[in-house]
Amino acid sequence: MNRRGKYVVTFPSLPTVISTAACVGKTEGEGPLAEYFDIVNENDGVGSSTWERAEAALVKQAAGLAIQKAGLKTKDIDIAFAGDLLNQCTASTFGLRETEIPLAGLFGACSTFALALIMASVAVDGGLADKALAEASSHFCSAEKQFRYPLEYGGQRTPTAQRTVTGAGAAVIAKERDGVKITHGMVGRVTDYGVTDMANMGAAMAPSAARTIADFLNDTGSRPADFDMILTGDLGSVGSSLLNEVLREEYGFDISRVHADCGNLIFDAEAQDVHAGGSGCGCSASVVCSYILPKMQRKELRKVLFAGTGALMSPLTALQGDTIPAVTHAVMFCS
Amino acid sequence: MNRRGKYVVTFPSLPTVISTAACVGKTEGEGPLAEYFDIVNENDGVGSSTWERAEAALVKQAAGLAIQKAGLKTKDIDIAFAGDLLNQCTASTFGLRETEIPLAGLFGACSTFALALIMASVAVDGGLADKALAEASSHFCSAEKQFRYPLEYGGQRTPTAQRTVTGAGAAVIAKERDGVKITHGMVGRVTDYGVTDMANMGAAMAPSAARTIADFLNDTGSRPADFDMILTGDLGSVGSSLLNEVLREEYGFDISRVHADCGNLIFDAEAQDVHAGGSGCGCSASVVCSYILPKMQRKELRKVLFAGTGALMSPLTALQGDTIPAVTHAVMFCS
Repeated sequence: MNRRGKYVVTFPSLPTVISTAACVGKTEGEGPLAEYFDIVNENDGVGSSTWERAEAALVKQAAGLAIQKAGLKTKDIDIAFAGDLLNQCTASTFGLRETEIPLAGLFGACSTFALALIMASVAVDGGLADKALAEASSHFCSAEKQFRYPLEYGGQRTPTAQRTVTGAGAAVIAKERDGVKITHGMVGRVTDYGVTDMANMGAAMAPSAARTIADFLNDTGSRPADFDMILTGDLGSVGSSLLNEVLREEYGFDISRVHADCGNLIFDAEAQDVHAGGSGCGCSASVVCSYILPKMQRKELRKVLFAGTGALMSPLTALQGDTIPAVTHAVMFCS
Repeated sequence: MNRRGKYVVTFPSLPTVISTAACVGKTEGEGPLAEYFDIVNENDGVGSSTWERAEAALVKQAAGLAIQKAGLKTKDIDIAFAGDLLNQCTASTFGLRETEIPLAGLFGACSTFALALIMASVAVDGGLADKALAEASSHFCSAEKQFRYPLEYGGQRTPTAQRTVTGAGAAVIAKERDGVKITHGMVGRVTDYGVTDMANMGAAMAPSAARTIADFLNDTGSRPADFDMILTGDLGSVGSSLLNEVLREEYGFDISRVHADCGNLIFDAEAQDVHAGGSGCGCSASVVCSYILPKMQRKELRKVLFAGTGALMSPLTALQGDTIPAVTHAVMFCS
């Protein structure tokens, strides 16, 4: 790896995405990206007896399928970088438990998939692994239960609230000639603008996304127009507006022509009544693995900056009156 | 990095531990390692209004001190790898929030410090960072509250139970000529022998520790006698006996002459009434950063294999009747 500016690294060996898989729930399968997912589960239980086991089952599905699509066996994978939103990250642990793949657990809230892609690229570029798996997941029901209210309570959601995506995305990274390349990576700094509203994650994460995107553009001497797409993780509609505003006013960058957000892409906000869009570690993981990377593989997009956003509070820190810190990790894909 | 055998990597540039710091609570400061800790806080509140903030304060103390002891400023640190046991890893996030250091969050339960050392070495060896911080923390009170009973309840603990260490350990890793070298790293596989007793973590983790240690010895063609110490994270007294038994009977290795365990070292089990010993991410982090690495720096130990052990359940998975998976990550130090 070579450092580029203060925060960005380049991967000279060009780690390659050799396969991806995205496995989602019923609501995601009724949204605009339905045709791109590998598996749309008929119900969100995914054949399991608890919501947490259902999320672990999604992790298992996506990992197994990504490995199979790469023409590999689990024993061929040298390391997995994975994480999720559940307390003690049990979806990843339980989902990958039987694979026997060495597991480096990550936590970055909804930025986890971007962090996993960076660490998998670091592993492959540096020689830690020949083949690395990057994965992240979330589940609407396990997240509602843990972060908000029991589902049975039927709580009303505010207009700024996002819907946690039921889904897992997995990618296999290796040194190969053909496929989408991961050329740059950037681990973000924690950013806290003092937002305290747990029902407005987009607002909490937008300043962090702006900072990482601005740092990335500055460190690499790029302009927004150099990219086919600057893709944020899950800011949703509220956070996306704020991101564009902060980037323009604080950093002097206008990304509006190339900006897209996984939280806006995955649902039809009006038809599906999801308020401000999708969220959760599984949101960007499943969108990037189903829609973005295959599109790049087909050369319909050539240069994409993916900035995965995460809000780093817990229900307890919120109850204790703490503000919501956020982090944004970025990877650049080229095809 | 070069792969060695199936699971081990070597770090040809020999990433070096250039400084360490360990900051602990009152009980730890009354134990056998009292004189080695950098800061023994007079009370476990660490000047904070909640136990969670107290743990974050320990993270901040240890990071600040390790960086200062290295003669550096926070802006000189390119990346931090850190994690803890709290839901959504908030001790690390909130503790490092103001440092402006790019933060890659890790989760490996009590194995987190070993994982952080591996990832910091990977980062430095591969060129992701010139200087990397590895850190982990835990707090008796925040852990009891989250994993067991409210402190005020005064619950009785079983003889196999361990006491979560109140402490944080941090190390700065860089390419330098002088200091303890990290020569090898190994990310472990999830191992589950079907233990379900949340009050016997040692038993849940011992088979995982045995597997990682055996894999490490096999991959590197080493024998236990090649090491001055094989140090496990926090198996405590019950888990340590089981480790020795499993290693002997299942893998044919006798490590009894060189084995030590951070959970046994940090407390005087009888005098301090801590039952089976210490545990928590902060246990191995504070023991390694206060006692082991400085001892190696003084050449009183030359070759140490540190196997950090983690139990990967959550209170919820335990209530749902799931078994306790475990993972053990290993690093080898030479001086």
